[in-house]
Amino acid sequence: MPDPRDALRAWFLGPRAENADLLERLVTEALRDHVFWRRNFHPEDGFTISERDRRAPGYEEAVATLTQELLGLLAELKRDVPFFSGRYKGHMVFEQTIAAQVGYFAAMLYNPNNVALEAAPVTTRLELEVARQLAGMIGYDPDAAWGHLTGGGTIANFEALWIARNIAYLPLAVRWAAADLGVQVPVGLPGGSTADLSALDLHALLNLQPADALDAWQRLKAAAPPDVVARTVARHTLGTAGYQEYSRRIAATYPDPLPDSVVLVAATAHYSWEKVVRALGIGGGQLRHVAVDAHCRMDPDALWETLSALARSRTPVMALVSVCGSTEESAMDRLDLVLDVRARAAAELGLAFHLHSDACYGGYAAAVTRDAAGERRDGVAIRRDLGGPWPTDEWVASAGALAGTDSITIDPHKLGYVPYPAGAFLCRDRRARDLVAVTPPYLAPAGGDPTGEEFLGRFIFEGSKPGAAAAAVWLSHKVLPLDERGYGYLIGQTALGARRLHAALAGADLGEFRTVLLPEPDINIVCWVVAKPGAATLADLNRFNEGIYRELSLHRPGGGPEYIITRTRFEHPQYDGAMPPLLEQLGVGSLDEWRGPEGGLVVLRATVMDPFLAAPPPVPDHVTGFVAALRRAARTAAERSDG
Amino acid sequence: MPDPRDALRAWFLGPRAENADLLERLVTEALRDHVFWRRNFHPEDGFTISERDRRAPGYEEAVATLTQELLGLLAELKRDVPFFSGRYKGHMVFEQTIAAQVGYFAAMLYNPNNVALEAAPVTTRLELEVARQLAGMIGYDPDAAWGHLTGGGTIANFEALWIARNIAYLPLAVRWAAADLGVQVPVGLPGGSTADLSALDLHALLNLQPADALDAWQRLKAAAPPDVVARTVARHTLGTAGYQEYSRRIAATYPDPLPDSVVLVAATAHYSWEKVVRALGIGGGQLRHVAVDAHCRMDPDALWETLSALARSRTPVMALVSVCGSTEESAMDRLDLVLDVRARAAAELGLAFHLHSDACYGGYAAAVTRDAAGERRDGVAIRRDLGGPWPTDEWVASAGALAGTDSITIDPHKLGYVPYPAGAFLCRDRRARDLVAVTPPYLAPAGGDPTGEEFLGRFIFEGSKPGAAAAAVWLSHKVLPLDERGYGYLIGQTALGARRLHAALAGADLGEFRTVLLPEPDINIVCWVVAKPGAATLADLNRFNEGIYRELSLHRPGGGPEYIITRTRFEHPQYDGAMPPLLEQLGVGSLDEWRGPEGGLVVLRATVMDPFLAAPPPVPDHVTGFVAALRRAARTAAERSDG
Repeated sequence: MPDPRDALRAWFLGPRAENADLLERLVTEALRDHVFWRRNFHPEDGFTISERDRRAPGYEEAVATLTQELLGLLAELKRDVPFFSGRYKGHMVFEQTIAAQVGYFAAMLYNPNNVALEAAPVTTRLELEVARQLAGMIGYDPDAAWGHLTGGGTIANFEALWIARNIAYLPLAVRWAAADLGVQVPVGLPGGSTADLSALDLHALLNLQPADALDAWQRLKAAAPPDVVARTVARHTLGTAGYQEYSRRIAATYPDPLPDSVVLVAATAHYSWEKVVRALGIGGGQLRHVAVDAHCRMDPDALWETLSALARSRTPVMALVSVCGSTEESAMDRLDLVLDVRARAAAELGLAFHLHSDACYGGYAAAVTRDAAGERRDGVAIRRDLGGPWPTDEWVASAGALAGTDSITIDPHKLGYVPYPAGAFLCRDRRARDLVAVTPPYLAPAGGDPTGEEFLGRFIFEGSKPGAAAAAVWLSHKVLPLDERGYGYLIGQTALGARRLHAALAGADLGEFRTVLLPEPDINIVCWVVAKPGAATLADLNRFNEGIYRELSLHRPGGGPEYIITRTRFEHPQYDGAMPPLLEQLGVGSLDEWRGPEGGLVVLRATVMDPFLAAPPPVPDHVTGFVAALRRAARTAAERSDG
Repeated sequence: MPDPRDALRAWFLGPRAENADLLERLVTEALRDHVFWRRNFHPEDGFTISERDRRAPGYEEAVATLTQELLGLLAELKRDVPFFSGRYKGHMVFEQTIAAQVGYFAAMLYNPNNVALEAAPVTTRLELEVARQLAGMIGYDPDAAWGHLTGGGTIANFEALWIARNIAYLPLAVRWAAADLGVQVPVGLPGGSTADLSALDLHALLNLQPADALDAWQRLKAAAPPDVVARTVARHTLGTAGYQEYSRRIAATYPDPLPDSVVLVAATAHYSWEKVVRALGIGGGQLRHVAVDAHCRMDPDALWETLSALARSRTPVMALVSVCGSTEESAMDRLDLVLDVRARAAAELGLAFHLHSDACYGGYAAAVTRDAAGERRDGVAIRRDLGGPWPTDEWVASAGALAGTDSITIDPHKLGYVPYPAGAFLCRDRRARDLVAVTPPYLAPAGGDPTGEEFLGRFIFEGSKPGAAAAAVWLSHKVLPLDERGYGYLIGQTALGARRLHAALAGADLGEFRTVLLPEPDINIVCWVVAKPGAATLADLNRFNEGIYRELSLHRPGGGPEYIITRTRFEHPQYDGAMPPLLEQLGVGSLDEWRGPEGGLVVLRATVMDPFLAAPPPVPDHVTGFVAALRRAARTAAERSDG
């Protein structure tokens, strides 16, 4: 493999489209290759469209319409966002790898549909290969795990909680089915002992480890004909009965009611989790935020307190969602510590639950922890090779702990630098996928078993989906492997660039203004507030920072953007843990004001997905340039609000 | 606009890639245009990747890796499916329009993310424009309706039932909120009278027309400060409370319980509906199939019987899903008659429910009913201009009735001939979208109201999604308008081609074998069974037809495919209405055998999305060719099973 310092310059089209000749060569190659494939398929068929047809007035007119409208579209696209530029530090997007762009285009000409092998014999296999690569990177056993691509992070997270919900109620289904079939099913308990399923009360049934629940199911399958077990268990699942009927059955069997099961999420969790619990029928009210610390990471003590309180009220926990790379701050929970709390909760509180990592943003960063042979690297080795202070040993421990989750979501269309749409869902125990399986009659493989890998649509939420996305991810992984030579190097550079930006902002001369920063980010999103002399309230400060944002966004009044950032709003109670140090440094407002009806704090946010920000001259210095632009923006915003 | 008979030949790359020069010119144009856009953005920034960098050994090596791996991918793709060929009559896919391919590629270089205007200022507007076009085609008022693109039909159908579920329980939320706020809210009833919400019993609350429920909500909003109403109603929604808590609240308020609400679907409904009801917590057991007739259309009498029985048992109906273009047969329910039954159920039974049309496959066919000015055309005019026997007047009435639904799903990536991923969801009353709205802090528009069109992510299930898909659909609609000049002509040709194939199969000389066909398809999917002398049971017949399918599929033993079709399995009870005439013609088996454990009927299925199948010579005659291939396949399958 090439030296990544040089290779980096061949991976992207480049901010000036410096690699335009390369991209054009490969796109043309892919197009012509496809053309000749068509011509090679039953060449004896002759032609459908003749050269004479191509000279008919209607044909010419249609080509004129097409060309004219395309030119119109291209003109419109000039008003799109320059994600490719070092001046763009907005949302979680940069330009895409050439490999991904060409891979997508090449496969799109074939338009495979990864719902089934029959509609995508090539790209279905690529999708499963990509899922294995991701599983290997985070430390799942690829043979025991299961994974696939999705349209994005929301769908992937939905699938994770859909499966978690069905695992949570699986012990009930197995227990009822066992009773119907007259079979005894032993099951492992969180404390390590074993009991018969029928002997457990409702609280114990809803507090089995996912693997124990799946083991019990498997034992039942071994005790009777598989199709009989399948039909009997299916009758007793939440999926079949629906929540209303299921609640009645539970109440009839277990007269002593429990509070509704809750889903715990780090307070930094993406807003899609709210959508997901509402849609699944769990309810937004059952989504509980676990407090974060000043680094915006889930606070392990707060998690323990939350779990202890839930144990006291006998509330089952359906799932715990930890965040690896929060949307606003790229914060990574100390997942190693979360795992410790989880183990302690099982041993001391008898609580068990599905543990999910929402690594939609941060998952690819785990590539820094792998060497070319796929072996783990420690913090010392990573820092030495990257030549910078990132990552800490604690960070490496958090990334390593991803292997201890039950499921994980990772978006290739974020830090995988591939075009939309590409999310990914992985679960550690492939048996869990059967909990959501549905088979249509027209897609069963010929003579084969519909439980095979050949029919993805059976096990996923989506149906038809672009095989081109799988080709894009696959080709990108071929060129940038998921280790120190590829994505590890790339993302490492962005983390170093973000540190450079963080240091520059911390020491920036903004004249009368000054910056108040969140701690150095766990990956590459820098957050700060600009303090203004004379701002008496948080509301004043928010208006001012909102004004800065407008100057540094597509919404800039009276002109194109110089630099582009975004902003977010820290609100109570999610950010309780992060606010005290910020307020102290700002010297404005109070926690009471922040919590109040006009409260919240506008925070400026720069995403550094640009791997060249840490590069030395002659690469353009967009750190210094940005600080200067921020100074101008602050002055303009102050003048506007004063005027 | 050009004559569609000539233009058709410019719309696609062509089975021999006859238009390769055109596609290559446009792709190159889009690529170079993008390149120069990059160079025009702050040209003073200089270069990030220098020509010297591009000569470093590591750079060269990275280019070598990329090129080599791309060549490997292109070689793999040679084993993909020749969707473009007239020999492919398999799944619901053909080649894509050049407009869609180029539009996708052009926008993909920019990689806009249609989650929000800030991440996709151009393609978000294109997406909303496309949704308006689709709404206009089916007859919704585009100003009152709401729609957007999705990753596919499953997501779109999910969103439809998610909204339907939330509308179904909205009257309860409004009623409880009104009580909290001390407000009286009048509401219209299915019979036409008006009552106060608080005076209604549970059955009446769950039997309001969707528009009446939305009106009641709006009245409450007018009676108190909007944010107070929003917070109060939100507290009382199913989405917030979750199913378990909600069931308890309902039981506490209304001690007289009702059976769980059901979802009615045509028996031909796509398997994704099973996924959807399971995921939403409604339950697979609450999905009720309404019988279809010999044409595989929902039987209006059976629908009336079903509704009458549900009224007698006081079972609420959450939604009725009618099918426009079934996956297996392209059958279109007589939606005009379904609307009649719905009106009668409201008047005579006091039943009201959300009516959804799953037009994922068939929706685009409604383009034949529009002229260039967007006005409706009747069957006589359509048949005259297409020059064939399709469509019937009843068909035109069914298509016109789409305007009477509450929501509809239409997949551009099926009969819109655009690449995956592109589904669409439309609802007639845009107020309904607020029932699923969630707003994240980091995507609220600058200073704007987050309820605006600028932030799609607020109102849709997915988050990040490709703006390129919107550009593809938009450009394709520009070149092929949604009327007789564009999609209408295109799909009309496929319907005529399917009729040609149907007639050829009906009269085919297959030697000792003979065909038994379903009636002429409503759109363009032809289904049949090959009867074999000596087949004593359905199981024999199924093995034989499964063998034919294998010969005419990618799974063909010992060689590449000659023609490609698919097969499905008609099962009890979904196909009860379609089986008697088939069994009679087959002269084998019985309804009892068909319903039994080894039952079901394997049906061969040819999707005709190829618009050239109806074309005269010198276009290759893939009707005659296919009949000959079917004869050979039948003989081979018979020999294999005899040997």
